[in-house]
Amino acid sequence: MSDIKLGFVGLGIMGRPMAINLLKAGYRVWIHARRAESMTAVADAGGTPCDSPAAVAAQAEIIFTMVSDTGDVEHVITGDNGILEGAHPNSIVVDMSTISPSATRALAARLAARDLHMLDAPVSGGDKGARDGTLSIMVGGKADIFERVRPLFEIMGKNIVHIGDHGAGQVTKACNQVAIAQTIVAVGEALLLAKASGVDPARVRQALLGGFANSRVLEVHGQRMLDGDYEPGFKANLHKKDMRIVLETANELGIALPGAAVATQWLNALVGTGNGELDSAALSLLQQQMCDVKLH
Amino acid sequence: MSDIKLGFVGLGIMGRPMAINLLKAGYRVWIHARRAESMTAVADAGGTPCDSPAAVAAQAEIIFTMVSDTGDVEHVITGDNGILEGAHPNSIVVDMSTISPSATRALAARLAARDLHMLDAPVSGGDKGARDGTLSIMVGGKADIFERVRPLFEIMGKNIVHIGDHGAGQVTKACNQVAIAQTIVAVGEALLLAKASGVDPARVRQALLGGFANSRVLEVHGQRMLDGDYEPGFKANLHKKDMRIVLETANELGIALPGAAVATQWLNALVGTGNGELDSAALSLLQQQMCDVKLH
Repeated sequence: MSDIKLGFVGLGIMGRPMAINLLKAGYRVWIHARRAESMTAVADAGGTPCDSPAAVAAQAEIIFTMVSDTGDVEHVITGDNGILEGAHPNSIVVDMSTISPSATRALAARLAARDLHMLDAPVSGGDKGARDGTLSIMVGGKADIFERVRPLFEIMGKNIVHIGDHGAGQVTKACNQVAIAQTIVAVGEALLLAKASGVDPARVRQALLGGFANSRVLEVHGQRMLDGDYEPGFKANLHKKDMRIVLETANELGIALPGAAVATQWLNALVGTGNGELDSAALSLLQQQMCDVKLH
Repeated sequence: MSDIKLGFVGLGIMGRPMAINLLKAGYRVWIHARRAESMTAVADAGGTPCDSPAAVAAQAEIIFTMVSDTGDVEHVITGDNGILEGAHPNSIVVDMSTISPSATRALAARLAARDLHMLDAPVSGGDKGARDGTLSIMVGGKADIFERVRPLFEIMGKNIVHIGDHGAGQVTKACNQVAIAQTIVAVGEALLLAKASGVDPARVRQALLGGFANSRVLEVHGQRMLDGDYEPGFKANLHKKDMRIVLETANELGIALPGAAVATQWLNALVGTGNGELDSAALSLLQQQMCDVKLH
């Protein structure tokens, strides 16, 4: 199995530990990052630096991409010196970034026209999950291609689900962010209402954990709010970006997601007030500020 | 312990099984309901029917009230032939309805002026929880009074938490409804986005259950939405009423709960379209209708 030659493009806070985990598992990995210094740690772990995504693709049969946004993925795949310029027929491009579902489908079609396969495989679990190899991975694309890549996903993650055809992974990630953003707003308001009413929000959280209001957000982000500890976790910058993709998708589809739209405004304001590097649970700070209530 | 004489005022879908559970545990219970026919089942189980809340209070040391709304509780306690007219000093009034926290504090003060104790002890868990004796009970009031009533709460419920002083139980219930209403909106939007994108919403729900989007609402109400099964559960009528109390409280406190306000509008519309007897998860039907998307 470890005869397969792998590529990894994008070695930021997420991509770097993911590529290193593949190397540790015994695979050969050709790597590229926009900034040369991002390659150092992965090269030290045994990765082979390349000048461009095209150069990575010329070596590898399965090429992972882990960059920031829709345009970045399009650039590393279809841009100058992009993957399309170097890839051999039947290679597989696995995009693990979180980007637009519709752009993903368009990319998959362009790749297919060149006899290349694609999977969209966005993740959740943050850089901690990337380091520990415990990411949740939501995958779209053909089932047989998914099966070929599955052993590699299992090195990087724990909860790996093939959802459906091209774009289905990105759609699932979008749904995930819709649910989480609004639940953060909801938990923030619940704790705010408690404190403003003179009731200990920690006791309220504890009572609510025992019933229908129970959620991972109440458990983890609720505790962050009580502690005033917004060490990410998942950065507001990224959650804001993901919600932009959600609302672009709602726009394309012509569907109304009013709850997601309102939650997005909180994230916009959080980033706009210079707090984009905090965990997205920090939108509670804005709720508290607006009402002159302190949770901790 | 079963020497204590109990009273129960309000024998609707919740109060009836709660009173019956107290009788089954060996207590004597004097009962009253506005409509005589509501008393039949509890009288058959051994309860003693009374003409008025005052008549119940004349017999009982601990009097439970389980009625619909703030005005109803005020009426059975302070109205003509109300509990205040019949109660002996040092009796305890335990209001298990879901009503306004500020009205609760005012009632507790009026009762205290007559040497009567009060606990606010709203519940969650619905009529199933009431029948099975598995309600969650959130309690406000003095700790020593709570300890005296605790054995009775343990007959009616499972997750029993003393939160704080008078009103703290009602505040906790309000926080609970704030979190649940918004999480229902969020889960409804997430499943809608999946379906509108051509992705199986059941697979998306399954994937999301494994990560940070996990919640009891995604688990239980998400499944209701996929099945189109809105048998309550917890009726939209009651959730709407509870959210009215939440927004009245936000108004009194001068705090902003924009997420709760928007979620309340969905519940208003659900009840306004004749669906108040459905589970409140049915607000997903309005989301689906608005977007011409069907989840099942």
